[in-house]
Amino acid sequence: MTTLKKFPLIDADRNLCLDAVEIAASRGLCLAGSDKWSIRCQKLSAGPTAGLHDIVLDSGAMAISLLPERGMGLWKGVCGHLPLGWDSPVSLPRHPAFVDQGDRGNLGWLHGFNELLCRCGLSSNGPPGSDQGDQLTLHGRVANLPAHHVEVQIDPAGPGRLAIVGQIEEASMFGSHWLLKSTLATTAGSKTFDVIDEVTNLADTPQHLSLLYHINIGRPFLEAGATFAMPHQEVAPRDSRAAEGIDEWQTYLGPRASYAEQAYFISPLANSNGEALAGLINSNRSAALVVRFPVKQLPCFTLWKNTQADGNGYVTGLEPGLNYPNFRAFEREQGRLPLVQPGETRRLKVSLEVLDDAAQVAAFTTEVTASQKGKPLVFRQPAGGYSPV
Amino acid sequence: MTTLKKFPLIDADRNLCLDAVEIAASRGLCLAGSDKWSIRCQKLSAGPTAGLHDIVLDSGAMAISLLPERGMGLWKGVCGHLPLGWDSPVSLPRHPAFVDQGDRGNLGWLHGFNELLCRCGLSSNGPPGSDQGDQLTLHGRVANLPAHHVEVQIDPAGPGRLAIVGQIEEASMFGSHWLLKSTLATTAGSKTFDVIDEVTNLADTPQHLSLLYHINIGRPFLEAGATFAMPHQEVAPRDSRAAEGIDEWQTYLGPRASYAEQAYFISPLANSNGEALAGLINSNRSAALVVRFPVKQLPCFTLWKNTQADGNGYVTGLEPGLNYPNFRAFEREQGRLPLVQPGETRRLKVSLEVLDDAAQVAAFTTEVTASQKGKPLVFRQPAGGYSPV
Amino acid sequence: MTTLKKFPLIDADRNLCLDAVEIAASRGLCLAGSDKWSIRCQKLSAGPTAGLHDIVLDSGAMAISLLPERGMGLWKGVCGHLPLGWDSPVSLPRHPAFVDQGDRGNLGWLHGFNELLCRCGLSSNGPPGSDQGDQLTLHGRVANLPAHHVEVQIDPAGPGRLAIVGQIEEASMFGSHWLLKSTLATTAGSKTFDVIDEVTNLADTPQHLSLLYHINIGRPFLEAGATFAMPHQEVAPRDSRAAEGIDEWQTYLGPRASYAEQAYFISPLANSNGEALAGLINSNRSAALVVRFPVKQLPCFTLWKNTQADGNGYVTGLEPGLNYPNFRAFEREQGRLPLVQPGETRRLKVSLEVLDDAAQVAAFTTEVTASQKGKPLVFRQPAGGYSPV
Repeated sequence: MTTLKKFPLIDADRNLCLDAVEIAASRGLCLAGSDKWSIRCQKLSAGPTAGLHDIVLDSGAMAISLLPERGMGLWKGVCGHLPLGWDSPVSLPRHPAFVDQGDRGNLGWLHGFNELLCRCGLSSNGPPGSDQGDQLTLHGRVANLPAHHVEVQIDPAGPGRLAIVGQIEEASMFGSHWLLKSTLATTAGSKTFDVIDEVTNLADTPQHLSLLYHINIGRPFLEAGATFAMPHQEVAPRDSRAAEGIDEWQTYLGPRASYAEQAYFISPLANSNGEALAGLINSNRSAALVVRFPVKQLPCFTLWKNTQADGNGYVTGLEPGLNYPNFRAFEREQGRLPLVQPGETRRLKVSLEVLDDAAQVAAFTTEVTASQKGKPLVFRQPAGGYSPV
Repeated sequence: MTTLKKFPLIDADRNLCLDAVEIAASRGLCLAGSDKWSIRCQKLSAGPTAGLHDIVLDSGAMAISLLPERGMGLWKGVCGHLPLGWDSPVSLPRHPAFVDQGDRGNLGWLHGFNELLCRCGLSSNGPPGSDQGDQLTLHGRVANLPAHHVEVQIDPAGPGRLAIVGQIEEASMFGSHWLLKSTLATTAGSKTFDVIDEVTNLADTPQHLSLLYHINIGRPFLEAGATFAMPHQEVAPRDSRAAEGIDEWQTYLGPRASYAEQAYFISPLANSNGEALAGLINSNRSAALVVRFPVKQLPCFTLWKNTQADGNGYVTGLEPGLNYPNFRAFEREQGRLPLVQPGETRRLKVSLEVLDDAAQVAAFTTEVTASQKGKPLVFRQPAGGYSPV
Repeated sequence: MTTLKKFPLIDADRNLCLDAVEIAASRGLCLAGSDKWSIRCQKLSAGPTAGLHDIVLDSGAMAISLLPERGMGLWKGVCGHLPLGWDSPVSLPRHPAFVDQGDRGNLGWLHGFNELLCRCGLSSNGPPGSDQGDQLTLHGRVANLPAHHVEVQIDPAGPGRLAIVGQIEEASMFGSHWLLKSTLATTAGSKTFDVIDEVTNLADTPQHLSLLYHINIGRPFLEAGATFAMPHQEVAPRDSRAAEGIDEWQTYLGPRASYAEQAYFISPLANSNGEALAGLINSNRSAALVVRFPVKQLPCFTLWKNTQADGNGYVTGLEPGLNYPNFRAFEREQGRLPLVQPGETRRLKVSLEVLDDAAQVAAFTTEVTASQKGKPLVFRQPAGGYSPV
């Protein structure tokens, strides 16, 4: 095997949909980086999961489960003894047929919210409301849209690259017409996974793009005394509730039943490669979940602190985005929703990396410190431009 | 076979979902009560039923069909020559994917309403509206939620007990988090089936529970001259329309196209076992459908009379509940929605019993008369506490 | 084979649902009209199509694909080198589970709109709104309801008649109760396909019926210079936007990104057989798509011009109907929604015919001219009776 190999899993044009597939080194596909990698796809059949596919991309060192029918979202992962994800009250992945986004006064998206990574977009994200004649539901449609085409790509060059590539159409007559081509990729033996999205405007009229990566992490990374580290220019509390916690915005409490969520809007500071880095570090600094992304592609970052009791969802969100998750009209007015021309493609990349020993965590915090050029501006109250004030 | 045997049918954690199962005495599972019992499960595939499972629990004397994907509701039954259920305009069981509860101005629940027994709850029941920031849809979510775990349990002790045990999660981020463990059980050879529900609050905050069992019966039990019998303390018409019929609230008309539904709110009177009993008796008193339940568990009972024309749904509802099906805010203000603490489980039991000869019916009416201690209070107009007046 | 043969494909009462069927002349079913006819049914499994069946009825000269789970709609067709249908931004047929009609402020129907022919009805069509206590969604429910019974019928008499017959129930408790029996039929070797609908009111109360056939055509019939021909008594622009184009209402532009849709309400003129005829003719008059229907059955016709850019959906609609697609209350006030009595059946027929050479097109235009008795009345502004003015 010397060239890129492709294995189709789902292809609506050919009415192809494989219900059980395993691709692994043991099948003669040797990669230099690891001999323990595998890609498994199974169709789920029970209760709220019925009709979903679960595709597990395992580098040999870390595995992530991807749900093509849930907007190519990442359901959960595992890296050695470290689970990646969180325990939502919604405990199983839900087929979109069981998610009525109009429920709860257009908050029904929350009936299906439990992933490690889900997208908010593509024509809108943020809270529901009426904007330019559209009735927006929370966080838009993309997280509940099914991929019509999914394939595995294996490139044996170097250590070996493993990828799942899916395509989703977000379209409606007299509405938007987006094609999302989403790749989840890693190298054999790696603890870093890349999410690479290409979003194309297939309409013949320009469209504003909204996109935010809702990356959600619970235990064991999140715990009392966990910290958040990120080079940044500015940080502003979303609202008065977040302002209450501005002095402790980079540290976490243990679970509390009475906790009300707090969100902080951040202007990331890029390192010399133009990359933003953000990490959630556990209490004894022996493990961290790190997110990296090009600041030019994703200039906004939202930190969502939701250290509610475990039964209600103990979680924090590290959320790179084109925009902050405010109401669409506000974000458009701030100029944060790029106007994508007909046929134009926007490329966006976010990397997820697990650090699983103290030395790696120390190296990461050193990197954060080194990249933190200058003293950040901390707004103690919601700030114009970030929030509607 | 001397101990409890369990046969899994659906288990989302293991991605197990059996499409065709039959368990019967002929397979070496002998029970003293009957050798004609069976439990059959089949996956439905056609039209609006596609994706449902139909599990028929047959005691040998009476059979009830259960739909795990429709909230563990009871679709219909049969006892000898007597069909149990009714003919709704919605003639086939509908997969929740075909029930948009937001349709018809949040009355879309009615697109799927045709069962012998369905639950209204768990976070709300009653009419749609806005309460405490929630937009409620008619009768809540539970009847359109799929079980993620279902198993058959067979206990050979005594006559032999047969049970279907299913688990449903009603959850949403920043919303409720209920686990319903529901058992449909009978003994081999029996004409009595028990519905035993255990509802646990898995959230870490207290939640108000709403739950009503909508037990719906049509022909042949319901007909012109059929009667309703139940020991009761008080009865009150729900509204002015029900007040019109207060003198005949315990008798039924034949089908009438112009009939508008009438509902009566009842305070049941327990017998010496603490049990309420309610029965729908056919015209010549040769058959009855009897419902029994512990009054302490289910202190409210609603009688729904809907003797519309057959094509529109000729039916009556015998509805034990934690509450009456008023708007949630009113029921909460009356103190009828128990505040369930984190981790607390509420147990609720309702029995359905078929009487199929005149002697049994006579014994039942004697029992009702004996339990009717004192003269009930009949409100001729909607009464405070029962209805918002 | 001398008598009508029936092959069931879907039957919910028997839990029958065939996933892959092919019936063809090669199986010993010889028809005089063609030996190339076939009927193929396959279950779709990928992405937004999962759970649909695609039934292709091929006369040997022309084929149309029918989707029983999408209201027996016609997905697309092909006649020789001529594709029938259009390119909607929604590129694949969508299972109703992926169409939330409440989305976009009750315009969610547009998430699934891409067929050659779909029905708008049965209890309402036209725009969303509140009417007589009902919250109406765009174009009603029927296009997103699944057939519970579908069978193939083959009649060897004469050239041989091929038909797909499906049944759909549009019902809701305290709502409507319609049975639609829909037949797609052709003769072996033919380029004409008939849609024959029988709609029965199964409720015991009279119901107003709304029904419009949204027949949608794009390239190659639609192009710059394409024309529309139809004998008519009157034509009125729907609104001021349509009035702008009243001088060119029978000709088409090429795709334009800035084009806003225009609709014209037409009173058809019947030929000597009582039939209306309407055709979309391509620019060089070598091909046409012709629609015929009895004016007594379908007295209204709407021409929908939507020559937007290709990426937004370049399409025109030829739409015979009981009514015009105005808001239901207005149509009812105009007396255009027949009040169907309990048990009454309305029969409606629409024929689709492809003309694929200049001689046929010329004959058709001659027929139109001959049938155009008298000069039609052209309203230059929206007219009372047609539009709410």
